[in-house]
Amino acid sequence: MSVQYVSAAELIDSDTESTSPFPLNMWYVAALSSELQDKPLPRTLLNNHIVFFRTADGKASALEDKCCHRSLPLSLGTVEESGIRCGYHGLLFNGDGKCIEIPGQDKVPRKALVSAYFICEQDHLIWIWFGDKNNQEPTCLPPSYPVHNAPEYLFGGDVYHYDAPYQLIHDNLLDLSHLGYVHLHTIGGNAKLHMTAETKVESDEKTVRVIRHMPDSVPPPTYSLAYPFTGKIDRWQEILFKISHLEIWTGAVDAGSDSLENPNRDGFHMKGFHGITPETETTCHYIWTMSTNPKNDPKETAKKVIEQTRLTFDEDKVVIEAQYKNMQSFKHNKMLDIHVDLAPNRARRIIETCLVLNSDVLEK
Amino acid sequence: MSVQYVSAAELIDSDTESTSPFPLNMWYVAALSSELQDKPLPRTLLNNHIVFFRTADGKASALEDKCCHRSLPLSLGTVEESGIRCGYHGLLFNGDGKCIEIPGQDKVPRKALVSAYFICEQDHLIWIWFGDKNNQEPTCLPPSYPVHNAPEYLFGGDVYHYDAPYQLIHDNLLDLSHLGYVHLHTIGGNAKLHMTAETKVESDEKTVRVIRHMPDSVPPPTYSLAYPFTGKIDRWQEILFKISHLEIWTGAVDAGSDSLENPNRDGFHMKGFHGITPETETTCHYIWTMSTNPKNDPKETAKKVIEQTRLTFDEDKVVIEAQYKNMQSFKHNKMLDIHVDLAPNRARRIIETCLVLNSDVLEK
Amino acid sequence: MSVQYVSAAELIDSDTESTSPFPLNMWYVAALSSELQDKPLPRTLLNNHIVFFRTADGKASALEDKCCHRSLPLSLGTVEESGIRCGYHGLLFNGDGKCIEIPGQDKVPRKALVSAYFICEQDHLIWIWFGDKNNQEPTCLPPSYPVHNAPEYLFGGDVYHYDAPYQLIHDNLLDLSHLGYVHLHTIGGNAKLHMTAETKVESDEKTVRVIRHMPDSVPPPTYSLAYPFTGKIDRWQEILFKISHLEIWTGAVDAGSDSLENPNRDGFHMKGFHGITPETETTCHYIWTMSTNPKNDPKETAKKVIEQTRLTFDEDKVVIEAQYKNMQSFKHNKMLDIHVDLAPNRARRIIETCLVLNSDVLEK
Repeated sequence: MSVQYVSAAELIDSDTESTSPFPLNMWYVAALSSELQDKPLPRTLLNNHIVFFRTADGKASALEDKCCHRSLPLSLGTVEESGIRCGYHGLLFNGDGKCIEIPGQDKVPRKALVSAYFICEQDHLIWIWFGDKNNQEPTCLPPSYPVHNAPEYLFGGDVYHYDAPYQLIHDNLLDLSHLGYVHLHTIGGNAKLHMTAETKVESDEKTVRVIRHMPDSVPPPTYSLAYPFTGKIDRWQEILFKISHLEIWTGAVDAGSDSLENPNRDGFHMKGFHGITPETETTCHYIWTMSTNPKNDPKETAKKVIEQTRLTFDEDKVVIEAQYKNMQSFKHNKMLDIHVDLAPNRARRIIETCLVLNSDVLEK
Repeated sequence: MSVQYVSAAELIDSDTESTSPFPLNMWYVAALSSELQDKPLPRTLLNNHIVFFRTADGKASALEDKCCHRSLPLSLGTVEESGIRCGYHGLLFNGDGKCIEIPGQDKVPRKALVSAYFICEQDHLIWIWFGDKNNQEPTCLPPSYPVHNAPEYLFGGDVYHYDAPYQLIHDNLLDLSHLGYVHLHTIGGNAKLHMTAETKVESDEKTVRVIRHMPDSVPPPTYSLAYPFTGKIDRWQEILFKISHLEIWTGAVDAGSDSLENPNRDGFHMKGFHGITPETETTCHYIWTMSTNPKNDPKETAKKVIEQTRLTFDEDKVVIEAQYKNMQSFKHNKMLDIHVDLAPNRARRIIETCLVLNSDVLEK
Repeated sequence: MSVQYVSAAELIDSDTESTSPFPLNMWYVAALSSELQDKPLPRTLLNNHIVFFRTADGKASALEDKCCHRSLPLSLGTVEESGIRCGYHGLLFNGDGKCIEIPGQDKVPRKALVSAYFICEQDHLIWIWFGDKNNQEPTCLPPSYPVHNAPEYLFGGDVYHYDAPYQLIHDNLLDLSHLGYVHLHTIGGNAKLHMTAETKVESDEKTVRVIRHMPDSVPPPTYSLAYPFTGKIDRWQEILFKISHLEIWTGAVDAGSDSLENPNRDGFHMKGFHGITPETETTCHYIWTMSTNPKNDPKETAKKVIEQTRLTFDEDKVVIEAQYKNMQSFKHNKMLDIHVDLAPNRARRIIETCLVLNSDVLEK
């Protein structure tokens, strides 16, 4: 695990302010580890324009994506053994943001530096910390997600860019009742079933958990294909909202063969990871993986499950972006709540509380 | 004829205000009847985002294009026998805007409704009423346009979207002298002829009429093709501006065979219908049809006439959009009037008077 | 040489104001002569929307690109023997901006005119004058650039549009040290050489001159190809900044064969002309030519040199536009100066002084 520390106390030119419209003092998902090869990766997160790169020793770094000399994006430059070199006049910066070479100039002034971000690569994910007040350093380790390292799971994923604010994706994921309408042609199946399954919602200050059990039901085609069920199944959907990301665990065991309260229960599992990181107030990145443990023809089945996941996410993107565009078209957007909005509304309240904390910090 | 009435007095979330920059208390053309088949039709008119749909009984409806639950455009949903169903969580709305089903929920709250618009389908056109103050109901029937139902006429048409304010199209249609320059390669022909034909302009509080007679002239090729003229012809162009739409009647009789004052005169007729409905202050819809009564090979000739009409409208669109873009590029747009501007300027004064009425209503 | 004078004192509707954000009272490059054939050429310069055209007598004219009747861009019209005719209602304007025909109308009112600009065609370039206060007439002739007329030179060029403010191109051209990084794959060659060559910077109130000599060096491939050097060479790069344009003279003589102080020295020459004319505050036109005097296979070699120039300018465009986009992304753009910024900073100071002069004029 490698947490990056900035080389100097003076963090120049940061666009992160205490008045952030986003929850702060937490780890967000910045990228999949697989995205970071030999090229710089530019990505804007919480209004910060950042370049990610991996030096020869395999270490990932994250710097403000702007050369301190003439403002060229460093992501247009080249990654070298000891850092990233600007593509205009060749200034070289190490992973701490310190300029370590100015071609043609003997002395490198102390002020030649760019902001560095605290990042941590763990479980095939690159996490980034956003603190309040001058981006103070992390007060905890990033969340662990051991599923990506578990040998019995195969996983794949992708990064989607959304022209919609991040909370609209929370709403969507915390309410799977939309499956019957949005995903009619993919995983939707029986709209009534999804709308009427008994749903339990639990929450505390930082999480919302939604649990839906569908005991003694007929296995859907994908399930039968992936796993040697003997007859009917006990299915579950468990959604866990953790502010910067969500985990969605769906699966099934042979009916009556195990308790759905047993966290280590056997059976077929599809474990979705959903990192939802604001880009700006009105756009976001959706960094997702799907991990699964098929018994029959594992590689091919996992591939199919991941591909199906991708198709449903494509459908969600169309709906959510259209929803946001429409919200912008109307002056007033009074919304009527229905039964499915319990969990999404709790998540919204948690984030509201985070934002109040932000302004409290500012006032001090 | 079917006028739609809203189900409840409370019209929520309407973006139509008394300060409308458009003439109110009148019928506008919303669509051609042929546009409304089994799919929802989204269209913004006078800043109102509306979805049009036709239920199984053939009845057309128009609702605010936003689900009252989470703001998805209803036009992304599906048309069912009894209404339109939202594509996110499946709420079903009837043609009056009342929600009649919330899947998975027993009770539909009284507030579950969207605004409905007064529309009327007549003469193969869908008309929509925009009143002032909370969109009060129509005080008259829509204008009739019997030409579309006359058995001796064949017609076709289309809907064009303009990146230009609606009044620039009025200017264009009320001044056919531009034919010689804009339509040089299509119907223009002799620029001098169009510029110098004697023109009579009449107007009252709500209409402008332009009449141009070209007696004893040589029939242009299209006319000869379409109609068995025996020699020279008496031609006319009559333009009738009626605020929300214009009628342009051109045609000819054998020279001396009938009076051009006789409204039922014989001969070859091209009757253009031009519904010009603002989308926003800076964009509009141009809904047009061309009806004609060729004697020779009627179907083929009508097809040619409609196709030629389309080509000239394409040319006008290029000019008018370039004109508006240029007006935006310059800070000042003092305009010099020339002889052709008499009728366009009268139409502008009529609309000015309408807009003054709008603000009077507001003050009351 | 033909300087255009406006026909009347009243210059209507000019968007040039004394508060111009650009240096005024000087000649800018408007176009290459070769751009002006039989079609109108629309171009926005210093926020002025202008149409350039060449009448039958070969004379170039520049008018405000907006018909005084209904604001259509005149550049959508047609060039005729005596002027340019509007494509809407056929108004005809001569090169002085005077309307000389309104079709269908006997009298042309005195106010029927559009602004004319002072231009001058010289050395295969079209120059345009921008004065302060109501665009007063030129107080001098445009700069001469005899290289374009010298029989021993072959030249070619092009016009690039930049989504970046003009001064970022000045920065780029006045600091050739970027060659090693931006032009790595074209003319860059040895980055160290470009960064460390001794550089002399001279400046006065209106010019900056940068001189770099690389005596007794190995000829680069292009040089050897173009010219029969016998061994090592004395190379030079001379950059001359003249506010509205720059001249960059590079070349070489056989080592020791001539003095690099001799302005008429022999050898191989590449003379670049760089007209950098603001379009708006944030965009500009880059009008360039490259003139050269190869001895070996002159036509083919000149073609290659011009093509190579084009490739490096393509590379600069990518960098400069990315630089500007990045500057806009960040709220703060404090910049750190390094050794290469001496000449660019002097040019910036000269322009600052020009802009102070603009506001002085305003106050009077």
